[in-house]
Amino acid sequence: MRLLFIGDIVGRPGRRALKENLPGLQRELDIDFVVANGENAAGGNGITREVARELLASGIDVITMGNHVWDHKEIFDLIEQEKRILRPANYPPGVPGAGFCVYETGHKGRIAVLNLAGRVFMSELDCPFRKADQLLAQLEGITRVILVDFHAEATSEKMAMGWYLAGRVSAVCGTHTHVQTADERILPGGTAYITDVGMTGPRDSVIGVKKELVLGKFLTQLPRRFEVASGPYQFNAVVIDIDDETGEAREVRRIQNFE
Amino acid sequence: MRLLFIGDIVGRPGRRALKENLPGLQRELDIDFVVANGENAAGGNGITREVARELLASGIDVITMGNHVWDHKEIFDLIEQEKRILRPANYPPGVPGAGFCVYETGHKGRIAVLNLAGRVFMSELDCPFRKADQLLAQLEGITRVILVDFHAEATSEKMAMGWYLAGRVSAVCGTHTHVQTADERILPGGTAYITDVGMTGPRDSVIGVKKELVLGKFLTQLPRRFEVASGPYQFNAVVIDIDDETGEAREVRRIQNFE
Amino acid sequence: MRLLFIGDIVGRPGRRALKENLPGLQRELDIDFVVANGENAAGGNGITREVARELLASGIDVITMGNHVWDHKEIFDLIEQEKRILRPANYPPGVPGAGFCVYETGHKGRIAVLNLAGRVFMSELDCPFRKADQLLAQLEGITRVILVDFHAEATSEKMAMGWYLAGRVSAVCGTHTHVQTADERILPGGTAYITDVGMTGPRDSVIGVKKELVLGKFLTQLPRRFEVASGPYQFNAVVIDIDDETGEAREVRRIQNFE
Amino acid sequence: MRLLFIGDIVGRPGRRALKENLPGLQRELDIDFVVANGENAAGGNGITREVARELLASGIDVITMGNHVWDHKEIFDLIEQEKRILRPANYPPGVPGAGFCVYETGHKGRIAVLNLAGRVFMSELDCPFRKADQLLAQLEGITRVILVDFHAEATSEKMAMGWYLAGRVSAVCGTHTHVQTADERILPGGTAYITDVGMTGPRDSVIGVKKELVLGKFLTQLPRRFEVASGPYQFNAVVIDIDDETGEAREVRRIQNFE
Ligand SMILES: [Fe+2]
Ligand SMILES: [Fe+2]
Ligand SMILES: [Fe+2]
Ligand SMILES: [Fe+2]
Ligand SMILES: [Fe+2]
Ligand SMILES: [Fe+2]
Ligand SMILES: [Fe+2]
Ligand SMILES: [Fe+2]
Repeated sequence: MRLLFIGDIVGRPGRRALKENLPGLQRELDIDFVVANGENAAGGNGITREVARELLASGIDVITMGNHVWDHKEIFDLIEQEKRILRPANYPPGVPGAGFCVYETGHKGRIAVLNLAGRVFMSELDCPFRKADQLLAQLEGITRVILVDFHAEATSEKMAMGWYLAGRVSAVCGTHTHVQTADERILPGGTAYITDVGMTGPRDSVIGVKKELVLGKFLTQLPRRFEVASGPYQFNAVVIDIDDETGEAREVRRIQNFE
Repeated sequence: MRLLFIGDIVGRPGRRALKENLPGLQRELDIDFVVANGENAAGGNGITREVARELLASGIDVITMGNHVWDHKEIFDLIEQEKRILRPANYPPGVPGAGFCVYETGHKGRIAVLNLAGRVFMSELDCPFRKADQLLAQLEGITRVILVDFHAEATSEKMAMGWYLAGRVSAVCGTHTHVQTADERILPGGTAYITDVGMTGPRDSVIGVKKELVLGKFLTQLPRRFEVASGPYQFNAVVIDIDDETGEAREVRRIQNFE
Repeated sequence: MRLLFIGDIVGRPGRRALKENLPGLQRELDIDFVVANGENAAGGNGITREVARELLASGIDVITMGNHVWDHKEIFDLIEQEKRILRPANYPPGVPGAGFCVYETGHKGRIAVLNLAGRVFMSELDCPFRKADQLLAQLEGITRVILVDFHAEATSEKMAMGWYLAGRVSAVCGTHTHVQTADERILPGGTAYITDVGMTGPRDSVIGVKKELVLGKFLTQLPRRFEVASGPYQFNAVVIDIDDETGEAREVRRIQNFE
Repeated sequence: MRLLFIGDIVGRPGRRALKENLPGLQRELDIDFVVANGENAAGGNGITREVARELLASGIDVITMGNHVWDHKEIFDLIEQEKRILRPANYPPGVPGAGFCVYETGHKGRIAVLNLAGRVFMSELDCPFRKADQLLAQLEGITRVILVDFHAEATSEKMAMGWYLAGRVSAVCGTHTHVQTADERILPGGTAYITDVGMTGPRDSVIGVKKELVLGKFLTQLPRRFEVASGPYQFNAVVIDIDDETGEAREVRRIQNFE
């Protein structure tokens, strides 16, 4: 099975990048399943029903989220209805939505997608490591093809998760920093790993935001309403080849397309 | 002028990587000046007189530091005596050592090296943006070839610094996360930029530390004495071509060598 | 001179507490000057022109602020026009408003009020200790009666400021935690000190906010729009007796009135 | 039942304060049970076997801990052997020691002591609110006299815990900030509450540490080895009267003794 994982889609430029790049990649690379982090898809913050529909119509099979998941109120209903949107699984019990799900890819069999969030420099969620253990126990016997989006800030927490799940899942793809890292590799046991897949959004920006606004914030410490930058996009993703039977990743390759 | 900037050197494996890679690179790439971040060079924490001598003898021209700069007591004397070791310039006035210096490269002219540290998720230093302004004013008329090591955690603060100094310095090289990013580029005005140059140290580790120790920390929240991992190394660096006259960067290229 | 410093006024219940308590206290205690922290006076977040007018009309001479200072847009104009509103002095240069001012109390002479904010667990401002040094140098020869509102989270940073300014100012009053501390004392050199003056606002709340909302936040980690609690108020303040000539504090006394 | 809860005991001055104050208080106030936070009892950091023996011999029945619990290596064995030392219950499963225990007070019946730690501005532990629910379920039918030491930084998290447990436990005593708060009260349902009991240690200090060292840290941002201050002590505690049958608190009173 060939999987495409797309880094945080930011606003309109990110969605344009998606529509201009995904069809071609699917054709050229013969992609079986597409997962994208969509936590910044609607104006840079969260996702709306309409934007979710747009992403899913563009060819994305599953949308994962992160700390921005709750930015738009309609997510609370949407995430209960739409099984193709996941939020970090390590929110406390009782929170709307699901943090993992098993999907049918067609003749290539099933794939499980897990969304987890880090805690270092972030918010006070349940332990993502122990939550991973619980979810993997539930997947026993259902599928060995398992993709994890670990949405986290600290490189240490992300690499630790990579090693923790090495040999137990097909891939651990980091998200959240909006900068693609150059450390993609196959960890022992056949787990594809990358610290951060990067951002699909406006290139001449500070992680997607108008650079003047972010600089103003750093220089004055005054609050600024952040807006998504305009201009040419970047498309950041990874392609992962997975053995359908064993769930082992054979190859992981970074993709960076520019407008 | 061709510059080599080497990402955080971690412990013995990092120093071995240095000695096995630098001479060859210098020969093949015709490097004029070598800067390396050495904040983890001595056992993963800080630097000692002996390790500094070792690094400088291996071909490094200037050692920059970061939040680990003060881990060994002897740094307090050492940094006053050795002009080739810099610590972040935005420590409060009166702190030992210097945060920038101008060096002679020989027939290629002068180069200024600036070391700055971020504040987001880090400690309460002076504003690195305003400090950069001050130092650049001091360099007026002395040299236009200026390299900045911005040692910071958050991608937003690092990219903001890149844009802030675009067209004003030759290069902004991020350090600290120990993971090389794949976003190297020449910003408008001729400034080479990369969010993080990465780590020169043990590859099968969590940012240089034995992975079992870091995982134990995350799983139990008990304190652990971290030790540098052993095993094969990675060598992370960037090569930057700079116009000696204008100080503009023409090209930046990532380097990753593995044992 | 007898000074009254009132802890963070929170929303409507805080303003009601002010109006029901201040006149009586002024009469009974013969207060010469009233300073209050007003960063939460307008609906729990920041201050508006109308609320500022209300506070000043209620008998407050100077309003200090904190991290919530910029919550309402109109503060940007207001703070430039109204000298009786201060924001933390250790914002970067160029930020609207002032962080200190000297006021005439009438026949008791002048008083300087300084507003500073902490950095530990808060935002990346300039060093409040060095900023205090600068401001005190400017006050040399103008007045020895100096009140500092140090708006900070960590008890360590607040006590450190108390000791740093002991013998140099008349009083260091901590604000921000919304809980009055029981450590009021006169430090050597005649400086009144208290780690936190507390909150003037709704008593049956979590630091002023409806408790159900805060508990919901802690239990689910979902974002909540915080609202000021209703119900009976608490009025928190300190009375400080200062020698008009020397600026030395002779006594500090806590006040807690309940509805 | 009359309970005495003593705020964080810091180093030698704290232990001296204990020995000079506890016997008298026990006699005068007819105390039935004494709990003290001992996380800083040994030289300011953690506890040792010898110091624990000293505290228990001085009349303390149960020692609670906090974020400094693991500072001395011998705690790992000690806490497994000594049921009178508790560490925060919301460490992950498998961590040495216990976070709650039921004790016999003699003819006044049983008392349960729970130790919990906050997460805001602290480390990544399990949710203290849900952990409290679990432990209270285990205490069902065993005793209604329940004391909670909630070791936390943020006033919001502490007050939230007070309200969460109001009517379910006898007392919620906050610790960790080393400054006694003046907000002691009986919450609805008969729960004694105070945001922080304060510190039993050297008075002329920054939360127990030599003030010169802490000031040096704030002014230079250089690391400092903190040492417990010397000089006169303060003894901080609360006395709580609890109905043995219903477990309801009838009164809570702050104690501050000075040398
Ligand atoms: Fe994102
Ligand atoms: Fe995110
Ligand atoms: Fe480093
Ligand atoms: Fe670092
Ligand atoms: Fe406030
Ligand atoms: Fe505040
Ligand atoms: Fe403590
Ligand atoms: Fe503590």
